[in-house]
Amino acid sequence: MRVALIGYGMMGKIIEQKLLAKGHEIAGIVSMDRLQSINDIRDPFDVIIDFSHPDNLESLLAYVEIHHTPIVISTTGFTSEQVAAIKHAALRSPVVYTANFSLGITVMQEVLRLITPILEDSFDMEVIEKHHNKKLDAPSGTAKMLVETLNPDGIYAEVYGREGNGKRQKEIGIHAVRGGSIVGEHSVIYAGEDEVLEIKHEAHSKHVFANGAIKAAEFLVGKPAGLYDMHDVLFRK
Amino acid sequence: MRVALIGYGMMGKIIEQKLLAKGHEIAGIVSMDRLQSINDIRDPFDVIIDFSHPDNLESLLAYVEIHHTPIVISTTGFTSEQVAAIKHAALRSPVVYTANFSLGITVMQEVLRLITPILEDSFDMEVIEKHHNKKLDAPSGTAKMLVETLNPDGIYAEVYGREGNGKRQKEIGIHAVRGGSIVGEHSVIYAGEDEVLEIKHEAHSKHVFANGAIKAAEFLVGKPAGLYDMHDVLFRK
Amino acid sequence: MRVALIGYGMMGKIIEQKLLAKGHEIAGIVSMDRLQSINDIRDPFDVIIDFSHPDNLESLLAYVEIHHTPIVISTTGFTSEQVAAIKHAALRSPVVYTANFSLGITVMQEVLRLITPILEDSFDMEVIEKHHNKKLDAPSGTAKMLVETLNPDGIYAEVYGREGNGKRQKEIGIHAVRGGSIVGEHSVIYAGEDEVLEIKHEAHSKHVFANGAIKAAEFLVGKPAGLYDMHDVLFRK
Amino acid sequence: MRVALIGYGMMGKIIEQKLLAKGHEIAGIVSMDRLQSINDIRDPFDVIIDFSHPDNLESLLAYVEIHHTPIVISTTGFTSEQVAAIKHAALRSPVVYTANFSLGITVMQEVLRLITPILEDSFDMEVIEKHHNKKLDAPSGTAKMLVETLNPDGIYAEVYGREGNGKRQKEIGIHAVRGGSIVGEHSVIYAGEDEVLEIKHEAHSKHVFANGAIKAAEFLVGKPAGLYDMHDVLFRK
Repeated sequence: MRVALIGYGMMGKIIEQKLLAKGHEIAGIVSMDRLQSINDIRDPFDVIIDFSHPDNLESLLAYVEIHHTPIVISTTGFTSEQVAAIKHAALRSPVVYTANFSLGITVMQEVLRLITPILEDSFDMEVIEKHHNKKLDAPSGTAKMLVETLNPDGIYAEVYGREGNGKRQKEIGIHAVRGGSIVGEHSVIYAGEDEVLEIKHEAHSKHVFANGAIKAAEFLVGKPAGLYDMHDVLFRK
Repeated sequence: MRVALIGYGMMGKIIEQKLLAKGHEIAGIVSMDRLQSINDIRDPFDVIIDFSHPDNLESLLAYVEIHHTPIVISTTGFTSEQVAAIKHAALRSPVVYTANFSLGITVMQEVLRLITPILEDSFDMEVIEKHHNKKLDAPSGTAKMLVETLNPDGIYAEVYGREGNGKRQKEIGIHAVRGGSIVGEHSVIYAGEDEVLEIKHEAHSKHVFANGAIKAAEFLVGKPAGLYDMHDVLFRK
Repeated sequence: MRVALIGYGMMGKIIEQKLLAKGHEIAGIVSMDRLQSINDIRDPFDVIIDFSHPDNLESLLAYVEIHHTPIVISTTGFTSEQVAAIKHAALRSPVVYTANFSLGITVMQEVLRLITPILEDSFDMEVIEKHHNKKLDAPSGTAKMLVETLNPDGIYAEVYGREGNGKRQKEIGIHAVRGGSIVGEHSVIYAGEDEVLEIKHEAHSKHVFANGAIKAAEFLVGKPAGLYDMHDVLFRK
Repeated sequence: MRVALIGYGMMGKIIEQKLLAKGHEIAGIVSMDRLQSINDIRDPFDVIIDFSHPDNLESLLAYVEIHHTPIVISTTGFTSEQVAAIKHAALRSPVVYTANFSLGITVMQEVLRLITPILEDSFDMEVIEKHHNKKLDAPSGTAKMLVETLNPDGIYAEVYGREGNGKRQKEIGIHAVRGGSIVGEHSVIYAGEDEVLEIKHEAHSKHVFANGAIKAAEFLVGKPAGLYDMHDVLFRK
């Protein structure tokens, strides 16, 4: 598999290493101090892996629009218009779009989907996520994805911290802890009358995400157009 | 609903209070300083709730054999012969038999059943439970129930603590923490390559069990013979 | 010991029970549906225990100003002017003023005082607290007390949740989780390079606070004027 | 600083990298597929760092006995005779001997030393540690070190897991969880009447240990004979 790698931060570098170690090829790398744009890549490639910045989305989707190249998108922090554009692109090209590539988070999302309808009448839901002190966005893309699973119809208000007076309403509290070099922890708490059920995932290194992104790229090559997530990648095969 | 209450420890007393508060009646209480046996209860009753000791099982099942009275059994620490006798009784009488009456544990068991087949190839499973310093049995009946859900075919060895040298085998470690007045905490850890998924339940008072036991009794009155668990009580209705 | 009990919510009722069980007397109870004011109590008393509302402070301190009665203050949510008034009253009367009466929290505060100067240069500090869904104030009085211990000179900004973009500054994040019937959990996280140290306290029932408040009252009777905390109550004796 | 590196497993390799990155030199490496013994190292060195196996201790101490070279010992699993030999060597050479080089664990030990005498009368103590599934010894050397801090006079029995019937005695339960690639987590729980205080440390990569071992070696060069621990290294300077 020949890959166009978009973004060359910590994650981009780990993915590069792992791709080469697995015998894949890298056709080109787009980043500040490498190629300017996907259009500058001379060699052919089978799939695009994007771990960069929302600003790159427009040119990536323009490229995909023409070439129908499979694309794995893991950038977070998109506007709702950008998310709509991704979904639109998936009508004509194969796209994996997810905030988190780990098996654990994929299974956790499955669990939340199963138990929330059973518990939500008598339990309150809160989300705590922890990341390193250099992370720019809060809450994390993964936390947003989990909250969407808890609150698909938007019937709960989403509250990002609490200060002052006032009783808890029909709401989900979302708490973004930042400190040290924490790779990523996500916890959903169901708190009821005299009992609490907690589902917690900890990622201990970025390798878990890199492995998942590569699996997603391998999955995508040869697939028909469509919007896929990690559930498809891991369980449909 | 008129109840025969077997066992009058902390749990028996809470159940008594809650039954009366809900307008139910107590036909008699069997315990060391009350009635000696279920046969000593003069008033009629609709259902038996047993939170006592394995020693009482024989006489209870003998009674049920004759009268087909619905029975809720929450005593733990039975031998495998006794468990077989309970299952046999359920052929002719309605029986709820469970180590834990909480909604949270029932849902947790459901979750374990769902995700263990997906995760067990690449994740190691361990169980930690915490209870107060007066608890006699280790691990708890609830922990045993959860382990059975993780290991229905017994393909994993079950290890109750570790000391000395030797690498982890195909096994599930089960850790019984005891201290203070902890009501009950159960945690299942799925530990994989660079990621950990944890499902944790905390009970903060025994009320949660009493409420569940009463729900089970209410469910059982009028049901046909059979072995029911909390999943039936909470979701079949 | 004869007690004037101010406030008759859940905590007031538990304290009443425990006082009587220990052979103490209650001279009067001030609350919405009892006596209007401490001045309405006819019988003499040795100490005041206040678990009520900031609005009662003025009349309580006016009473103490005249009679120099020892007073245990556990109400939270005071303005800084009110806190100053409490400190002023302690110049002439014995006062215990604390947001949390438990031994565990008192020891936790001691620990934070010891380790924060060692760790704060290379670790980030964050606070998570969890309480039931009926709690009105956020963060809890106890959380504020702990943050003051971490940040005595106010050199860290205090941040109550995070949303949007921006890197962590010289700050302490404080996260108030609300749900179910959680009695009270407080956690301080020191997150450094590849390691995290966490100090966590869980209260499992309000009895722990009632016991501490009564100990504080017993301690205070006969003491000279001064502002005391639980450290004094538990360790100076 | 020129270093003799004993042991070339995962930790040895990380230490090698970090030493070179910091401008230190490596005089030789003793391991199965490198040099057989410290006596085979031709170049001079200032300090020995040992992350190997108890079997190497005898030859290392023999070398130190003659040359009085400073030595940092982080191997675990020694017999009590071997520990006595280390202490004896420290009479004539500078020795750092510790199971854990992290700042967090050093501070945690300090905390346990402070609070155990205050809490042990009314709280039960239990230890939970978690490590990867390839770890051979249980409990970890660090857990043993922490337990010694909790139980310096051996007045508590040490219990490594629980199964069967019987009430908790005057004991400390020690629970070794093994799974996945967990780097190292140590938790001490003080469980009392309706409250629990927990002190927990998580190491997220072995770098934290390598950094500490190098700090210890830098500290040791030029020091007089004596047995030092990380508390000396980090706070005496």
